[in-house]
Amino acid sequence: MAKLGVGVVGAGRMGRCHAENLRSRIPEAKLIAVADVDLEAARRLAADLEIEHSYPSVEALVERKDIDAVVIASPSKFHLAAVETAAAARKHILCEKPLAMTLEGVDAAIAAARKSHIVLQVGFMRRYDPAYSEAHRRIEAGEIGTPIIFKAIGRDREPPPLSFYKSGSGTLFLDSTIHEFDLARWLMRDEVLEVHAFGGMLANPEIAKLGELDAGIVNLRFEGGAIGNVESFRQSRYGYDIFTEVVGSKATLRIGYLRQTALSVLTADGVSHDVVDHFLVRFADAYLNEVRDFVQRILAEKPASVTGEDARKALAIALAADASQRQSRSVLVPPQMQTEMANSR
Amino acid sequence: MAKLGVGVVGAGRMGRCHAENLRSRIPEAKLIAVADVDLEAARRLAADLEIEHSYPSVEALVERKDIDAVVIASPSKFHLAAVETAAAARKHILCEKPLAMTLEGVDAAIAAARKSHIVLQVGFMRRYDPAYSEAHRRIEAGEIGTPIIFKAIGRDREPPPLSFYKSGSGTLFLDSTIHEFDLARWLMRDEVLEVHAFGGMLANPEIAKLGELDAGIVNLRFEGGAIGNVESFRQSRYGYDIFTEVVGSKATLRIGYLRQTALSVLTADGVSHDVVDHFLVRFADAYLNEVRDFVQRILAEKPASVTGEDARKALAIALAADASQRQSRSVLVPPQMQTEMANSR
Amino acid sequence: MAKLGVGVVGAGRMGRCHAENLRSRIPEAKLIAVADVDLEAARRLAADLEIEHSYPSVEALVERKDIDAVVIASPSKFHLAAVETAAAARKHILCEKPLAMTLEGVDAAIAAARKSHIVLQVGFMRRYDPAYSEAHRRIEAGEIGTPIIFKAIGRDREPPPLSFYKSGSGTLFLDSTIHEFDLARWLMRDEVLEVHAFGGMLANPEIAKLGELDAGIVNLRFEGGAIGNVESFRQSRYGYDIFTEVVGSKATLRIGYLRQTALSVLTADGVSHDVVDHFLVRFADAYLNEVRDFVQRILAEKPASVTGEDARKALAIALAADASQRQSRSVLVPPQMQTEMANSR
Amino acid sequence: MAKLGVGVVGAGRMGRCHAENLRSRIPEAKLIAVADVDLEAARRLAADLEIEHSYPSVEALVERKDIDAVVIASPSKFHLAAVETAAAARKHILCEKPLAMTLEGVDAAIAAARKSHIVLQVGFMRRYDPAYSEAHRRIEAGEIGTPIIFKAIGRDREPPPLSFYKSGSGTLFLDSTIHEFDLARWLMRDEVLEVHAFGGMLANPEIAKLGELDAGIVNLRFEGGAIGNVESFRQSRYGYDIFTEVVGSKATLRIGYLRQTALSVLTADGVSHDVVDHFLVRFADAYLNEVRDFVQRILAEKPASVTGEDARKALAIALAADASQRQSRSVLVPPQMQTEMANSR
Repeated sequence: MAKLGVGVVGAGRMGRCHAENLRSRIPEAKLIAVADVDLEAARRLAADLEIEHSYPSVEALVERKDIDAVVIASPSKFHLAAVETAAAARKHILCEKPLAMTLEGVDAAIAAARKSHIVLQVGFMRRYDPAYSEAHRRIEAGEIGTPIIFKAIGRDREPPPLSFYKSGSGTLFLDSTIHEFDLARWLMRDEVLEVHAFGGMLANPEIAKLGELDAGIVNLRFEGGAIGNVESFRQSRYGYDIFTEVVGSKATLRIGYLRQTALSVLTADGVSHDVVDHFLVRFADAYLNEVRDFVQRILAEKPASVTGEDARKALAIALAADASQRQSRSVLVPPQMQTEMANSR
Repeated sequence: MAKLGVGVVGAGRMGRCHAENLRSRIPEAKLIAVADVDLEAARRLAADLEIEHSYPSVEALVERKDIDAVVIASPSKFHLAAVETAAAARKHILCEKPLAMTLEGVDAAIAAARKSHIVLQVGFMRRYDPAYSEAHRRIEAGEIGTPIIFKAIGRDREPPPLSFYKSGSGTLFLDSTIHEFDLARWLMRDEVLEVHAFGGMLANPEIAKLGELDAGIVNLRFEGGAIGNVESFRQSRYGYDIFTEVVGSKATLRIGYLRQTALSVLTADGVSHDVVDHFLVRFADAYLNEVRDFVQRILAEKPASVTGEDARKALAIALAADASQRQSRSVLVPPQMQTEMANSR
Repeated sequence: MAKLGVGVVGAGRMGRCHAENLRSRIPEAKLIAVADVDLEAARRLAADLEIEHSYPSVEALVERKDIDAVVIASPSKFHLAAVETAAAARKHILCEKPLAMTLEGVDAAIAAARKSHIVLQVGFMRRYDPAYSEAHRRIEAGEIGTPIIFKAIGRDREPPPLSFYKSGSGTLFLDSTIHEFDLARWLMRDEVLEVHAFGGMLANPEIAKLGELDAGIVNLRFEGGAIGNVESFRQSRYGYDIFTEVVGSKATLRIGYLRQTALSVLTADGVSHDVVDHFLVRFADAYLNEVRDFVQRILAEKPASVTGEDARKALAIALAADASQRQSRSVLVPPQMQTEMANSR
Repeated sequence: MAKLGVGVVGAGRMGRCHAENLRSRIPEAKLIAVADVDLEAARRLAADLEIEHSYPSVEALVERKDIDAVVIASPSKFHLAAVETAAAARKHILCEKPLAMTLEGVDAAIAAARKSHIVLQVGFMRRYDPAYSEAHRRIEAGEIGTPIIFKAIGRDREPPPLSFYKSGSGTLFLDSTIHEFDLARWLMRDEVLEVHAFGGMLANPEIAKLGELDAGIVNLRFEGGAIGNVESFRQSRYGYDIFTEVVGSKATLRIGYLRQTALSVLTADGVSHDVVDHFLVRFADAYLNEVRDFVQRILAEKPASVTGEDARKALAIALAADASQRQSRSVLVPPQMQTEMANSR
């Protein structure tokens, strides 16, 4: 079998995760090179994974003929440029979310991919988590009847470092809640029509100083009449808590868990156990499944299962939530809002 | 010790619950009589509890000199009249929620109680549930730091009978979510400033025909900046699910459970257990503790711990949620809204 | 309806529990009197429950014509004499376990009851717990297939006071594990044929000084070939932990829970909750259901559902476990052992 | 860094697991070759992992100079011969349990390793599971006080294929319960002095025809006085259930979980979730950590952390349990029993 040659853009935490999976756990892929503007970081990652090539730029990396596809895991604000460069070089693309920071950006990315006839997949990896995937399967099979209410919580144990905010990560809704917005569409099998958001700078003064929310709560109304609510919080302290619930007319599904180690401690003070602490732990399987699916679909000449259009729709909801929170009113998502929002940024 | 003579108004499900507790589980109280416009129902309840007196009206019941206090558990729309009658007869009052259907009504009830120098307690029984009570104690003690996010779910297994709606129960937010609004104030130690609500007629066509919501979701913004969300749903099918979470700057508390019987069944299809099915099961202890506290406070000449003012504030939030849902915009709670809302009904 | 007149023997913790239930929660019963050799204790209990009569002895209590039945909750070593006295006076009997300390004693109690044509029920109250009762129902209905393995744990949070041991409570197996032996027979629908026990004086030096085990572990072999194991421990510190499992050829049932308050605390150290702490909490429903069934069966002229024969068989297993532990060998239960054991004590 | 050259003996399920970990997840190791008497199986595994060399025998594999260490994962009855061959060729050895089927065999393996100055590690992989490892750490740190009671359950969802039994797998206690015997020693920090076992052929007639137990239950007495019980069952149907509990004088630890997918399904019939189904799922981390520790210790010239002596002691307990079950009596483990047992086989 011919292997798919893959390059990874970004040698940070996420880039390393993807590179490790490609290096040793996806037999159909061959990791060729990694790139990072911090060339030293790229070299370290290449050395750790025992591959030969590292580059200081996407441009340099995509010059290689033996690279068929790239995984883009650079900071969010560089996603679009990397996508355009890779697409121009006719490399298939798996890009971390958000695909771009504006709807025009997403549209440009989609257009670039379409022009080059490449696969463009977006990194909503939760769809590849076994629990979310099984939930989706059951909903598709009609097991819960009609989805009626969507609820989700996304809490980090500790906020990302301040450097993350300064690198242009996007707002809370755009960087973090966007995962829940994607799940809302995917699991409810419906589009979000209207949102209302409250936000807070409640837990972390450092983040507040940057003018960024550390907590947000978004009411959702779907086209078909269903309702929902999504919460994001940057600093739970107790753990990385990703919880989603789909209430259906016949049954309800809950996805999520808090426990990390299979150990309970029983003392005179009660029963206790630890909590999963990080998304790379919680979603280790999801990241692996995601990049495997990306590779296998390219080799099978199938379209991506998570598309630029998915990225666009989740971003539109996030931008509407931003607008709602700033303007203290409920905001319609498509189509008028999308344009308005895009223009206003 | 002289016992407190008590009469119960309303021989329905809730009236029976209170009467049973007073009859046999509160040694400081003596259940004297029950009243119901359906005199037969009152007589049956009296017979079942082996007490002598039953009456067809509050008026008749409060004529008894040996009755010091009444518990009002008639349909919601009759609460105010019963309160005014009992207050005029100088009987202490524990009234089921909502105290009245409008803010003016609540004000009238409060004024009547004040004029007669009686205790007026409102039936937010959840404050007496051991788990909620312990949560409140911990929050008061500072164990979770500053409360930041409030989340609550209130789901019935099956909706109340249609006759309940026709009896003038009030809207979903006013009849059901009002419990969560009270908890929000009590546990967050703050007042709700602004709400935004979406509602749905999603699960039960019979309820939809009556023009009533069966699902609602309400974003909350507190005066101190904290945020929250509350959901109510009439027909979960899987059980009676009351869940509350208070996220604090140091720790998080979760109150609620789904399990009823301490039995797990393990088969090739997985592990399963049953779910608590009814509020009289979930809150059996709370109802007992509530009425005991009512009795003991009167005997000790202490003021009520859950007051008319509490009823007023929870009602104001519920009315704001109603307005928000109807008008599709976020609505401020006090003070302007309260008057507007009151007037609009 | 004529009510069943009942007297309670023993004004300690268990006597009070039964008396309270009879006084106010069993409409078919009328609590007439309580007796205790400590007459002051009897008087206090009578006063607390607002009943008129208290006596210093079973003999005095059973002289009352208006007493149809007695509940015996005195220390274990006095059970047999109280049963014989009550039976001679033709009072129906609900006696706490163990019915007697020897098999001859049990035989004498059974004979006395038979001679007087009275109902003799034994206090294996767990059979009345909703979870155990539901498990039994499912097993009877064939839902788990053939029962194959029986497992049980019975742990006290703290040991009973030393005075309890000195009052002649019987050994660990006879006083505590006897509950699990009864459950083993009842849930497995089979008789225990052979046992092997190890014991320890491991946690509490005060109990060790009295020569009593604080921990014991008993292997079981059933007549039909099934196997099992039962553990008892006096001092878990973390809570009152009663857990039973029946593994069947098709499904497995687990009965038990640790949680008391429906509150979880989430901190940087993990998730924790409290644990049920006492048998009067864990089995509050069971004790009520037990005495209600006793009363209702007498009124309906039905035989007891938990019989003297059940007491005899559980005691035989306990005595065999004692012998096994002392002699460090496995011991057959019936029939030879029973006689041998009975003789050896 | 020079890598450790490793060969894997046995191309079945366990051999594949080890080979995959060595191939791609242990950077310090280089997987050189695999061997299996079924050369086709060896070739398939080599091809899947993209390594060059496959052999039909241990003898052929250990001739390679670039192989420093071997992992032995052939059927149990061939372990000893493979160990002796590898030791003679001066290859370090990680051998699956049991190291040999008799105590003499274990002694011979230990002697061979000692003579060649190689590392001999035994595959009690549970010690490397994060939950067991953390439990051990806490016990060593004194967090639970003195260990008092040891409890363990080991249940397979479905029994191994009949071919497994026919390949000479050893008895239930020797093949399966031996894991629990090792944990008992390791977690209780004590040696087992005496055992008593009941066994059954209860669930699976095919296994019964082979004269093998499908269920067994073993009482344990430790040298220091602690007691315990271990159960093994081949056919739970509901899942792969590995549960261990260490009750200490101050606190209790429980290790184990049933859940596989982080999904709960809530319907009118209750709440349900799936169960972990296989040891390769439950102990995936443990197998990886185990072989990584093996490799790292060799490179660091450290002794094995799980030794031949550990294998010997766990086997002695298993043999004693076999004897107890056959003879229906309790049996002392060391030292007399060991020799007796060894001789009797």
